[in-house]
Amino acid sequence: MRVIVDAFGGDNAPLEVIKGAALAREEYKVEVALVGREGEIRRVAQENGISLDGIAILDAPDVIRMEDEPKSILKEKKNCSMAEGLRRLAAGEGDAFVSAGSTGALIMGATFLVKRIKGVSRAALAALMPGDKGPFMLIDSGANVECRPEMLLQFAHMGSIYMSSVLGGGKPARVGLMNVGTEDTKGGELQHTAFALLKESGLTFVGNVEARDVPDNVADVVVADGFTGNVFLKTMEGTADIVMRNIKGLFLTNLRTKIAALLVKPYLKGFKKKMDTSEYGGAPLLGVSKPVIKTHGNSKAPAVKNAIRVAADFAAKGVIDQIAAAVRPAEKADRPEQQQG
Amino acid sequence: MRVIVDAFGGDNAPLEVIKGAALAREEYKVEVALVGREGEIRRVAQENGISLDGIAILDAPDVIRMEDEPKSILKEKKNCSMAEGLRRLAAGEGDAFVSAGSTGALIMGATFLVKRIKGVSRAALAALMPGDKGPFMLIDSGANVECRPEMLLQFAHMGSIYMSSVLGGGKPARVGLMNVGTEDTKGGELQHTAFALLKESGLTFVGNVEARDVPDNVADVVVADGFTGNVFLKTMEGTADIVMRNIKGLFLTNLRTKIAALLVKPYLKGFKKKMDTSEYGGAPLLGVSKPVIKTHGNSKAPAVKNAIRVAADFAAKGVIDQIAAAVRPAEKADRPEQQQG
Repeated sequence: MRVIVDAFGGDNAPLEVIKGAALAREEYKVEVALVGREGEIRRVAQENGISLDGIAILDAPDVIRMEDEPKSILKEKKNCSMAEGLRRLAAGEGDAFVSAGSTGALIMGATFLVKRIKGVSRAALAALMPGDKGPFMLIDSGANVECRPEMLLQFAHMGSIYMSSVLGGGKPARVGLMNVGTEDTKGGELQHTAFALLKESGLTFVGNVEARDVPDNVADVVVADGFTGNVFLKTMEGTADIVMRNIKGLFLTNLRTKIAALLVKPYLKGFKKKMDTSEYGGAPLLGVSKPVIKTHGNSKAPAVKNAIRVAADFAAKGVIDQIAAAVRPAEKADRPEQQQG
Repeated sequence: MRVIVDAFGGDNAPLEVIKGAALAREEYKVEVALVGREGEIRRVAQENGISLDGIAILDAPDVIRMEDEPKSILKEKKNCSMAEGLRRLAAGEGDAFVSAGSTGALIMGATFLVKRIKGVSRAALAALMPGDKGPFMLIDSGANVECRPEMLLQFAHMGSIYMSSVLGGGKPARVGLMNVGTEDTKGGELQHTAFALLKESGLTFVGNVEARDVPDNVADVVVADGFTGNVFLKTMEGTADIVMRNIKGLFLTNLRTKIAALLVKPYLKGFKKKMDTSEYGGAPLLGVSKPVIKTHGNSKAPAVKNAIRVAADFAAKGVIDQIAAAVRPAEKADRPEQQQG
C-alpha cells in the first residue's frame, strides 16, 4: 500500500504536509511518497528535523495555487505537484492520492488525468461532516453545481458504498435526500425524480431529510446537488463558527466569566474535537477510478496523517471495485437479456 | 391602524395569541382584531384573566392545521380563522394580518384572497435571521422552490425596500446573492442571470455572498431561490441548536462545570436573546398587496406582541406602495417613451 501525498497543497505546505507524512509513516507503517519540489522538501525536512526515512520523493517543479483557474492543472500548471501526483497515481505508482490544494483543480485533474470509473457520469466531492452522534457524509458538497436526478442516484450509490465500507464496518448506510420537508412530495423536479429513483435503488433509503435534522444524524449519507450541498456545508461552518465565537467572547466578559472559562475549559476540548472534521481525514472524491482524498486547505500535520490513513483504507476496502460494480448495470452492456417464461 | 391577528394559528393558540394581542394593545395602543372562534376566545381570555378591552373579535368557525394541505384554505377550510382574517384584510377591515399558522396555507391564502401586487410574479417569504451584528433578511426562505432569475430580482427589490424602510431607518440595504463562492462567475445558470440583473438593478448590490459569511452580516438582504433559502435557514437553526445543546450538556457534566454554568448564566441570556428571531416579529410575506406577517409556529405572547408591532410598522411605512412603484417599470405600461435628444 502506497499513498502519494501532494507536498505543496494547502495553506501550511510543505512543512505540515511533510510532518504529517512522517507521522503516518511511523504510526501506520504505510508507504508514503511526497510529490513536489524535491530540493525544497529535503531542505524543509532537514531544517525541522523530520526524518524522510522510508518516504519516497517524486519531483515536480511547479505548484498550483488557490487563485489559479482549475483548468490550468491541464495546461499552464501541468507540471505542478498535484498534476504529477495524479499522473503517478494513474500510472499505478501509488494506490491513493491525498491533497490539501485547490478543490476545483483536484476535481478537474482527477477527472482528466485519472479518469472516472466506467459508467459514472460525474465525480462528486463527499464531505465528512460532524454530526451529533458521529460523522455523516454529504455528497455532493460542491463539485457539480447543476445536477440531473440520475447523478444524485449515482452519488447515493457511491456514498453508501464508501460509508459502509470505510466508516461503517460493512453495515448498510442510511441514505437521505436533502429536501425542504420530509414528505415524499417535497421539493422541485430534481428532488421528485431523484426520490423515485432512490426508492427503487435497493439502497437503505430513509426518504427526504431536512437540513435542520441532518446534523442530528438522520442519515449516514445525505444526497444533494453540489449547489445545495455547498450551501449546507458552508452554513453549518459559518453558524458553528459564530456561535462558538460568541460563547468565547462571553467567557471573556469579566473575572467571573473568566473563572467559569477555566472551569469548563477541559470539557470544551472534547466538544471541539467532536466538531473537528480533520479526524475523518478529509473528503473522498468519489467516482474517480483511483482513491483521491481532498483534505481541508488549512490542514496541519495530524489532519494530513489522518488523511493518509483514510486514503490507505479507501484503497484497501475495495471501494472503487464496488462502485464500478454498482454503476455497471446502468450501461446494460454486458447483461444478457432475460428470456421470457 | 388596525392589525388582524389569527387567534388559532401556531402551537400555542389561542392562549398565547390572545395574551400577545392584549400586550400589544396595551403597549403600542395599536388597534387589534382577533379572528377565530369567538366563544372560545372569550372563554380562554376570561379563564386566564386577560382583558379584551379595545380588542375586536371577528368570528370564524374553523381552524386550518399544519397537517392540512395548503390549498385546503381555498376549499374545505375556507371558513378557517386564517382565511377569514385574510378576507377581512382584503376587504379593508384591517391594515395588516399576522398568523403563526401553516406557512404553506398562509402563502396560498394571501396570494389568492388578498392577491399579489400588480407586476409581482410571486410572493416570497422573507425571514429575518439572527446575524452576529443584528438581523439580516433571507428572501425567499421557502415559498418558491423553483425560481426564475427575474423572480430573484423582484425578491431583491422587495426585500431591500422592507429592510430599508422598516428596519434600516431609510438607509439603503446591501443586497447579496447567495452563491457557492464570491467570484462573479460562480453558481449555475440561475445565479449567472440573476447576478447580471442585480448588477443593473440600481440596488446596493454587494455581489455574490457565501453561506459561510452570511451570519456575519455581509449583506442586509440575502437573495436566494426558495429551495436554497429554506436549506440555509434550516441548516442555521439545526446547527445552532446542536452547538447550544452540546454546550448545555457540557455544563451539566459535574459539580465543577455546574459552578461554571452558574457563573456565566446571566451572560448566556444576552447571547440567547441575540439568536432569538422572535424579537424581529416574524417573516413578512412580500409581494402581497397588503401587509402579511408569518410568525414562528412556536410563538409565545411576546413574539405575537412583537409581530403586531412590526405588522403595524410594515403598514405605516408604505412598503406596499414602494414595492408597487419598484415593480411597475417591469410592465412598461404607463411609462411614456423617452424622447430622443
